[in-house]
Amino acid sequence: MSANKTRILVSEVGPRDGLQSIGSVMPTAAKKAWIAAEAAAGVSEIEVGSFVPPKLLPQLADTAEIVGYARTIPGLTVAVLVPNLKGAENAVAAGAHKITLPLSVSETHSRANLRKTHAEVLAEVRGIVELLDTLPADERPEFEGGLSTAFGCTLEGRVDERKVVELAVKLMELGCDEVGLSDTTGYANPAQVQRLVKLVRAEVGDDALTGVHLHNTRGLGLANALAALEVGITTLDASLGGIGGCPFAPGASGNIVTEDVVFMLDSMGYETGIDIEQLLRVRDIVREALPDEELYGFTPDAGLPKGYRTMTGTVDSIAI
Amino acid sequence: MSANKTRILVSEVGPRDGLQSIGSVMPTAAKKAWIAAEAAAGVSEIEVGSFVPPKLLPQLADTAEIVGYARTIPGLTVAVLVPNLKGAENAVAAGAHKITLPLSVSETHSRANLRKTHAEVLAEVRGIVELLDTLPADERPEFEGGLSTAFGCTLEGRVDERKVVELAVKLMELGCDEVGLSDTTGYANPAQVQRLVKLVRAEVGDDALTGVHLHNTRGLGLANALAALEVGITTLDASLGGIGGCPFAPGASGNIVTEDVVFMLDSMGYETGIDIEQLLRVRDIVREALPDEELYGFTPDAGLPKGYRTMTGTVDSIAI
Repeated sequence: MSANKTRILVSEVGPRDGLQSIGSVMPTAAKKAWIAAEAAAGVSEIEVGSFVPPKLLPQLADTAEIVGYARTIPGLTVAVLVPNLKGAENAVAAGAHKITLPLSVSETHSRANLRKTHAEVLAEVRGIVELLDTLPADERPEFEGGLSTAFGCTLEGRVDERKVVELAVKLMELGCDEVGLSDTTGYANPAQVQRLVKLVRAEVGDDALTGVHLHNTRGLGLANALAALEVGITTLDASLGGIGGCPFAPGASGNIVTEDVVFMLDSMGYETGIDIEQLLRVRDIVREALPDEELYGFTPDAGLPKGYRTMTGTVDSIAI
Repeated sequence: MSANKTRILVSEVGPRDGLQSIGSVMPTAAKKAWIAAEAAAGVSEIEVGSFVPPKLLPQLADTAEIVGYARTIPGLTVAVLVPNLKGAENAVAAGAHKITLPLSVSETHSRANLRKTHAEVLAEVRGIVELLDTLPADERPEFEGGLSTAFGCTLEGRVDERKVVELAVKLMELGCDEVGLSDTTGYANPAQVQRLVKLVRAEVGDDALTGVHLHNTRGLGLANALAALEVGITTLDASLGGIGGCPFAPGASGNIVTEDVVFMLDSMGYETGIDIEQLLRVRDIVREALPDEELYGFTPDAGLPKGYRTMTGTVDSIAI
């Protein structure tokens, strides 16, 4: 676990996964301020929205404008979610750097979430790859297949790990650049995370699975993140203030909290490129724009430890 | 991390560490009901109180009666905290199976908490060992030296790891049966937990350090627990509902939650001997007896996953 300066990418998904699951609509200007502030704090990848029909998720109806804005921030990888080929066309038109299509390993959940069978989702993947293949290399976004409900499903219960592996292989065969594992429902445990990462990597290769998307539904989010790091995962999705979840999986709320996971990584000596003090201040923007939403996170409440060495100095007072 | 049926002892500290840090006083009858119910759920060690002067902690003034009651529960190890020789005398008279004396590695914290320097605390340890040596073997309680603020101090900040090792060695030389490491202030990170466990064990031996006492102040409690397990720790202190903390270390609230740590262990395949469904129901007793106190824990809120295999069957509905 010696973690001397291994680089870990913390990918902020709050503007997509967080906002999609709450009732409040964040004004476009506030989203831009949030994204700009978090990028300024050193977060280098942000999932800024989702190209779903605006009538389904009015909170994300401004995704094209947000992508356009986020692209102007130097060094920021601008990621979006797309549910289908149509979404991918919009993402490409807007200039997203990375697109993720979720494929729910639980077919019951897939039908509830995307209203599609596995075969139908895979057909969309095929169409997206054909679209991307028409683009010049420097305009081609990275394409990830996100295996949601990979650790269990609130509708089906246990999910067969062989099915996860099978779908991961299928996504790579169809032309995805990589796959990701999502604990959509907060069912994962550390042993399962390590086992499944190893199983999938054994079939698709280490480079094709670098990231996991974890929820903190049962409090195991950071333990699962630690377990993932130990088997070589280098990208962790997280949501500022822990807002978010999946609106179609009852009880499956709560991404891991960006502030807490950055504190864990930073305190362990991992390199994140993120200034944690600056990151903690980004909460003010989200709180002000979403006054009715609860923000989560332990580190923000407790403050940084006395004597803690940040990018800019040493914490010499108790923040609480 | 393959954890096939390794036995882990979850030691409940709520009736001591939890109750000492809250304003409410739990009635003696409720404490007995709590301890009985948790023991019935399979928890085999409970720290039931502390032999401190009642005027300092009126919440724990009934500790002798509670010890007497808890001793009647078959198979339960009845543990107590003692701040000094006088406390140990009372613990022995009451019949505690295990006594823990906290020695704060931060001497500033030691003076604030126990009003004693290191030398003064070590003199108490010496006196306690002399007392224990007068007892017949079958009446001699196990004696642990608990190294508090081992991972950092809200008053001093960083704590020198060499000081932790030095005091651990000293406690063992004086005749403690074992030492424990306490993250009193919630400053620990997983890398630090593993490093410090290894450093101390290298000097005192693996058998003399089997347990850690972790807080969840910055959300890293379960990740730290996982890290500890990975280096061979087999006893984890936890508090039902996450109540508790240290009243003399500002902001250092929040033991790891028994329900969440048991869910983590159970889901990973560790053997805890605890029926998690029964454990979750113990919250009702604590909630009823302490209506003004907040109970923490993610697993209790989210419920067990659908399809989860418990001691008695398979969870087939979503508990929320």
